[in-house]
Order: sequence, then C-alpha cells, then structure tokens
Amino acid sequence: MAKQAKTAITPTREENYPLWYQQVVKAADMAENSDVRGCMVIKPWGYSIWENIQRTLDDKFKETGHVNAYFPLFIPKSFFEKEAEHVEGFAKECAVVTHTRLEDNGKGGLKPAGKLTEELIVRPTSETIIGASFAKWVNSYRDLPLLINQWANVVRWELRTRLFLRTTEFLWQEGHTVHATEKEAVDETMLILKLYADFARDYLAMPVIEGEKTESERFPGAESTFTFEAMMQDRKALQAGTSHFLGQKFAKASEIKFQNKDGREEFAWTTSWGVTTRLIGAIIMAHSDDNGLILPPRIAPKHVVIVPIYRNDEEKEKVLGFVSKLQEKIKTLRFDDKKIGVHVDNRDLRGGEKLWEWIKKGVPIRLEIGPRDVDGNSVFMGRRDLEPRDKKNVNVDEFTQNLISTLNEIQNNIYQKALNFQQQNIVKIDNKNDFYNFFTPKNKNNPEIHGGFARSHWCGNAKCEEQIKDDLKVTIRCIPLDAEQESGKCIYCDEESDKRVIFAKSY
Amino acid sequence: MAKQAKTAITPTREENYPLWYQQVVKAADMAENSDVRGCMVIKPWGYSIWENIQRTLDDKFKETGHVNAYFPLFIPKSFFEKEAEHVEGFAKECAVVTHTRLEDNGKGGLKPAGKLTEELIVRPTSETIIGASFAKWVNSYRDLPLLINQWANVVRWELRTRLFLRTTEFLWQEGHTVHATEKEAVDETMLILKLYADFARDYLAMPVIEGEKTESERFPGAESTFTFEAMMQDRKALQAGTSHFLGQKFAKASEIKFQNKDGREEFAWTTSWGVTTRLIGAIIMAHSDDNGLILPPRIAPKHVVIVPIYRNDEEKEKVLGFVSKLQEKIKTLRFDDKKIGVHVDNRDLRGGEKLWEWIKKGVPIRLEIGPRDVDGNSVFMGRRDLEPRDKKNVNVDEFTQNLISTLNEIQNNIYQKALNFQQQNIVKIDNKNDFYNFFTPKNKNNPEIHGGFARSHWCGNAKCEEQIKDDLKVTIRCIPLDAEQESGKCIYCDEESDKRVIFAKSY
Repeated sequence: MAKQAKTAITPTREENYPLWYQQVVKAADMAENSDVRGCMVIKPWGYSIWENIQRTLDDKFKETGHVNAYFPLFIPKSFFEKEAEHVEGFAKECAVVTHTRLEDNGKGGLKPAGKLTEELIVRPTSETIIGASFAKWVNSYRDLPLLINQWANVVRWELRTRLFLRTTEFLWQEGHTVHATEKEAVDETMLILKLYADFARDYLAMPVIEGEKTESERFPGAESTFTFEAMMQDRKALQAGTSHFLGQKFAKASEIKFQNKDGREEFAWTTSWGVTTRLIGAIIMAHSDDNGLILPPRIAPKHVVIVPIYRNDEEKEKVLGFVSKLQEKIKTLRFDDKKIGVHVDNRDLRGGEKLWEWIKKGVPIRLEIGPRDVDGNSVFMGRRDLEPRDKKNVNVDEFTQNLISTLNEIQNNIYQKALNFQQQNIVKIDNKNDFYNFFTPKNKNNPEIHGGFARSHWCGNAKCEEQIKDDLKVTIRCIPLDAEQESGKCIYCDEESDKRVIFAKSY
Repeated sequence: MAKQAKTAITPTREENYPLWYQQVVKAADMAENSDVRGCMVIKPWGYSIWENIQRTLDDKFKETGHVNAYFPLFIPKSFFEKEAEHVEGFAKECAVVTHTRLEDNGKGGLKPAGKLTEELIVRPTSETIIGASFAKWVNSYRDLPLLINQWANVVRWELRTRLFLRTTEFLWQEGHTVHATEKEAVDETMLILKLYADFARDYLAMPVIEGEKTESERFPGAESTFTFEAMMQDRKALQAGTSHFLGQKFAKASEIKFQNKDGREEFAWTTSWGVTTRLIGAIIMAHSDDNGLILPPRIAPKHVVIVPIYRNDEEKEKVLGFVSKLQEKIKTLRFDDKKIGVHVDNRDLRGGEKLWEWIKKGVPIRLEIGPRDVDGNSVFMGRRDLEPRDKKNVNVDEFTQNLISTLNEIQNNIYQKALNFQQQNIVKIDNKNDFYNFFTPKNKNNPEIHGGFARSHWCGNAKCEEQIKDDLKVTIRCIPLDAEQESGKCIYCDEESDKRVIFAKSY
C-alpha cells in the first residue's frame, strides 16, 4: 500500500483554518487557555519568541531616544471620565476593582470586603494615568520632547478570545510621548510607524501595508491613527500594531502644559503607540504550514537543533563527542549580533519523534547526526523553509562556514513566500458586483478562505463604509500611505474618489 | 563669611533617615507616588536600574536551566480557597475584581456593571494559578524538573507604603519549580538562595546574611523559607529576597502528580522564590550618602558622565570635538561584558548645576572637560565613591586605559564600605538587659537610629520571639546558615540554645 501524504497538523489550513491555528499553537507548545476566562498562559516556547520581539524592539526604541518607565496597573475611575471619547471606547471592556480584602462568608468560603470609595480600573491602556504624571513632569519647552515607553500587561474584557490574537489580558509595549509642536508629534507618530513596519519586514519576515485608519476605526480619542496591516494565509488582514497622533486632546484632558520659548503657556502635543503579543499570532498565521510553526531565524529562540542518532553505547560516545564539538563551534558564531541558539536534543525518545517535534516548533535548521555522519565528517540537514523530507548531507566545515548565510537565506525565503502570497491576493476592484463576489465565500462550510485584500475606491463617506461592513463584514483596513492620487468612483455609491483604500475582512 | 559645609540632600541621614530616603529618591528622579494610593510611578532613572537587575538575574536563571513563561494576572477566588494557610496569609491584602464594565450612573458619572459570577483576585503571588497549569504539564518523571520563572507585576494592598520598599503594586520575578524528590526541591531552594546572595554581593555591592526564617516569619504555606538580609545605614535589616521550599503542600492542593520510574503515582515537590523592585530601595539605603544616590558600577545605567565646559563658540567647538572623540573611545570598551554607559550632558545649564545633578543620581564617574583640559590632553575626574570636591586631573589616555579597573575599584570600595558598616554593627549579646538597651533608641525624636543586628541565643520557642517583638519591634531576621553549634541561653527566657540567630528591627 502506498504511503498516504500526511501532515503533522490536523486539520490542514484548507480544511479548517481556525482549528489549524489552534493546533499549531498546541503542537508547538506555545500557549494554552487558563482557568481564567479569556486569559492565556504563555508557555516557555511562546514566551521566548516574545522575549526576542521585546529585546529587538526595545533596542530600537532606545536607539531613537526613548526610555522605559513604569506606571500603575490601576486607573482611578475618575481619570476615565476625563476624555469622553476615550472612556466611551473602553468602558464596555473594563475589569473593575471594587474591594481590597477577602473575608469569611460564613459558609466556608470567602467574600470581598474593604469596599473602595473610588473604583479602580485595570489598565486597558495608560493614556489617562500617564497623562497625570506627564502634567507634573512637563513645565518648560526644555522638558520636551518627553519620549517614554512601558512594557506591561493590559486587560480588555473580550467575549470571544483566541490565543495570542485576542485575549482578555495581553502583554504589550505602550509608547507615550509629549512634544512642543504639532509637527514634532506627527513626525514621532510616523517615525514609530516606520520603525514597526521595518521590524515586521526585517525580523518577522512579514510584508505589511502602512496606512491611516478611517475615523470609524480610529483609537478612541486620537486625532489620527496609523496602522500596519499584514495578510494572513486565510487572506484576512491582521492589524499588527498602531501609532496614534493624539493632537492636544489628551494634553487638554490631563492639563499637560508648558512654557514655550516666548514664555507663554501652551498645551502640549502627544502621541501613543503599541504592539502586543498578537504579533506572535501574526507570525504563526503568516508563515506556518500544515506541519506546524515556521519561525523566521531572526526571531527564533533556537536556530539549530541537533538530534544525535545512535544504537549502542559505543555509537553514543562517538556521536556525542562529535556533536559536542560542533555545538561549541556553533556557539562561537553570531547571527544578527546575537549568539546562535543551538540545542542538542538528548532525550530518551525515538529520533523521528524528536525531529517532528522540532518541525512543529518551527526551528529553522535541524541536524541529524549518526555514526556514519561522524565517519564522513558531515551532518544531515533539514531546513524548516523546505519540505520535511528535503534533507541533505553537508560537510560539517561547510555547514558551519555557511551557517550565517543559510540562516539569512531561510529568513529571505520566508519573507519572499509571504510577499508573493500577499501580492497575489491584493486585487484592484472597480465594480461593486465583483467586489461583493470577491468577499463572498465560495464554500459556506469554510467561510474563512475567501478573496483577500481589495484595492478599491472609497468616497470618504462613513455611511458607505458602514454598509459594506454590515453586508460583508469587510472593513477599510487602511488608507495606504503610498496610495497614488487617482480619480475613480466609490465602490459602494459611485461618488468621486481620489485614491484607493484597502478593504478586507480582519482579525 | 566662611562657606558652610552643606549637603545636597536635606535632611541628612543623621537628622531624619526616613525623610532622607525620600529626598534621595526624589533628587535622583527615580520614582514618585501616583494618584493611585500606594502605587508608585517608576521614573526612567529608577526603571533603568531595574532593567539592569532584571537582565543580570535573567541571564543567571537561564544559565541554571530556568526558562521564562507568563501566567494570568487574575486568580479565581476559588483557587485561593485551596491552601488554607496561603489564603490566610494574603486574604487581607487582595485587590478584588468584581465587575467587567463601566456604565452611566445617571448622574453624569460611571458605575461598575457586568458583575462576575466568581470574583477574581489580582495576583499577590502566583503559586495557586501556576499550580493549576503545572498539574496539567507534569505527568511523568520525564517532565521533571520543571524550572519556570516569570517577570511580572503583583499587588498586595498595603496600608503604609514607601517608594520601592513597600508599595501596593510592585514588580518582581517569581520562580516556580517542580521536582521529583524532596532532595532536589531543597537543592533548588538553596541554589537560588546562593544565586541571589552572590548577585547581591557581586552586583549590588551589598553584604548579606543568608539564613532560614523562623516559623512565624515563613511564607504562608511554605515548609521552610530562606532569606538573605542586608543591613541598611539606619542599622535596620531589609529582607532582600526569599526562596521557599514548599514541600508537597501546594502539589497536594493543586494535584501536581507524576508517575515515578516504578510506574507509581506520587505528589511532586515544589519551590518558589522571588526578588522585587524593593532591591532598588536596598541599593539606595545601603550605599547612598548625604549628597544622594551612590550606584555600584555593575548596576549603574550610566558609568561615565561628561560635562563639557566652555564660554564661547570657539571653546565650544574645541571642547565638543575632544569630548566626542573620548566618548567614541569609551564606547568601544566593555565592562562586565556590556557596553559602558557614557553620557555627554550638553544641556544649556551651568556646569556646577549639572555636576550636582549627576552626583545626586549616583553616576560612578564624572568628567569635567574645558579648553585647558583639551590643551593638556587631560580630563578632570570625580568619583562618586569619593568626596565631591576630591577631583583630579588625569591624562586622557591613562583615563581610558584604567577605566575598567577604576570601575572595579569603585565597585569594591562601595562593597567594602558597606561590609565594614555591617560588621561594626553586628554585635554578640548574651545578656537580656544589654539586649533591651541595644534596641532602645537613645534619641526619642530619632528612633530609627539604634543598635543594629544582635547575634543572640534563642531557645526556639515562638513565645520568646513574640515577646521580644511586642516589647521592642525586634524580630528574628534569620537563623544564619553558617551559625556555629554553640551552647548558650535564650536571650529572653534563659532556656538552653544551641546556636545564635540574628535579631533586628526590619523594613
């Protein structure tokens, strides 16, 4: 009987994309649901990817003059009442602390006690509490710009949650900056947007589209919100992060004022920006295949895994000696100015089982080394960007000489593949009927796999945007920064339009 | 009129130690109280010290086989009811989330809505929620040891708070490990205690005493708690961190079971351990003087600050050219395998003002460089471990050649000074009257400055411990690990005792 083509992950992407996603997360041992509704446990493999994201971005923030600080987890309810739009945006998803003690409930259990006079909100974002500090810190133009970042946990009470993509508690960084002029604040907003987009392309191997959000998709209270959007393999858009120009709204709500060079008092201009653990979800969905996670080398916690193969003590000694020398050699090399992560999997399990585990975990390079490889001074190499069976013998010195360039090649391959996919699935559409057909799933049992991104004209009217959203669950992901001036007709109402925007279903 | 001897910090340590502490924190711009009662804002200078602590400890945890993960902020109330002693220990200081929304209260304000069926506790520590995960992760002896750490924020509702030392929310790391045998869990507990104590001595320049806590001072639910205690300059003890052997108590409460090598099911053995942002308070109080913060070089965010001195554009160009070359040269050097932090203070302020600011911030080395220094190819150097006026001219090449050894010398000086202070203030006391006199403040207006650490005999009876605490607010800080067997009489009741313990007032 012929061997059936089988994948490590069931179901496949084609069969059931949402379930495939869950299975990839599980098979790679990255995260799991906790006993607290909507809150995830980030397991070591998933967390180490976050650590890499954090370290890389943190260095970039510092290079551009930002410093880290830490602000309270709790926000007094009254702070939330200061900026009307802002509270409107978050009031429906707030965790509220009302008590400060537990005491005996008389039935063998516990009940809350010590009622607070003013309730505290667990931060869903920190503009208001940070604004209160900034009001104290900023007095003169000499104190500006103030460029602060915070790495923290935040809570937004979500009804429908999905590991990494949407969880009640998530980890993020939130940048908050204060400037003397509108121009400086806008420049900061765009600087960070570019920093994020470059990071997504260069590290996460993820092609993204940078653009501005329409009014209905803006951050509550912002003057303008900029986003970078990535295409997942189900052709949906994922908002990978945002950078907000807040104008003087929050400065006015929090009284962030400064004396300008002429000695007059002015309200300052602020920005805020953030990316979250959702980026891990984006990596999974942009790159992984039906055998599990595929990690771009520049963000992988381990770059090389070595599985020693032996049948008896004599072979074991021979193989492990060779492996240990190779491991030491690899450790002396640097990729991306960091030590290469090399792991020898010595567990008492069958070789095939171990290899599949590392495939599912997405490690860029797997090496199998047995007695014959030792004799031939070679390694048997598999690359995660190629098929699992596509392995080859490589002389060990060649392997180490080429290791950095191989890792770069894998990084580029992964990026190119995602870029090709994105470009194939961004379509110019100028006809309402085509537009509606594009976004209507052909297979009702599998509605996730549908069109892709539509580049279409929009008149700028929120009503057209609303109607399309109601009809198709399709939203304007962004008005791309590089959109050319081009006259056309709104895809919904046929009114004049001067540029195309990106429509898509989204996460 | 003769210049009066004046310090940068008012009051001095002698005048009012608690107020001096607050003023040092403020003058170094490290942290401030927030609008949320008991929660602090950690400002960039304070936070960057925490980042250094975090980076160094994290590397050490990883070197010893631990990995990071992240667990939910919220703990279901029912989890808290599982381990009786544990809940008893924390129930009085819990922030309780009871609602998930805010809605219009009809009076122009907001009120909590969306009542939870089960209240959630903001984690005061994570044993119970992590235990629930570990119960799923551990099945076989092959899964052990499980060595997990988490960097997180925690909340303990404190009535009296002090920046860094005791705050309602603080940052920490919490290690949680699972082992197959009692011995392995005890070994882990002691491994971490040693790691912490070495870190305190080698990085924070802080002499510490390692020992075991008495039953009354133990972590709620632990079998045994080990601590390392440091002496502050008011001669009080500060518990700098703890490592707990939890026995099988938490494993039983959370059902962490595994199949042993013989195929039988057993409860596992667990440990937990942590240090917090309190370490920053410890650095301040162990080393700083009446001119402000003194930072050990191995934990300082900046090692060298350069203040250029010039009076006109010609001098400015000359000086800044020289300074910039020196800065580049310093940047190529590495101290402790990290880049040296060098900052050029170019602000439009008077030189003296800038220099005092860096003294108050505790930077190890200050350089003043004016046109005459450029001509002489020299720098005018001040060291934070010496008096502010004790500065000297150094040839610039000599300066860079010796920079690493100078930093090491400063590190050692700071440690030696703290060690001498500690040793001078640890006293053997064998007489109850002397003991009571030792701990009775001579100056009632300044009760903080009193005896120090008493090494005295204790019979092991909790009643004697309790009486001393009631009478003097003095507690047993620890039973030192290196306490010699020595027969003596309990300082309180005269019963037999076989070793001395450390008594002190504490933070």
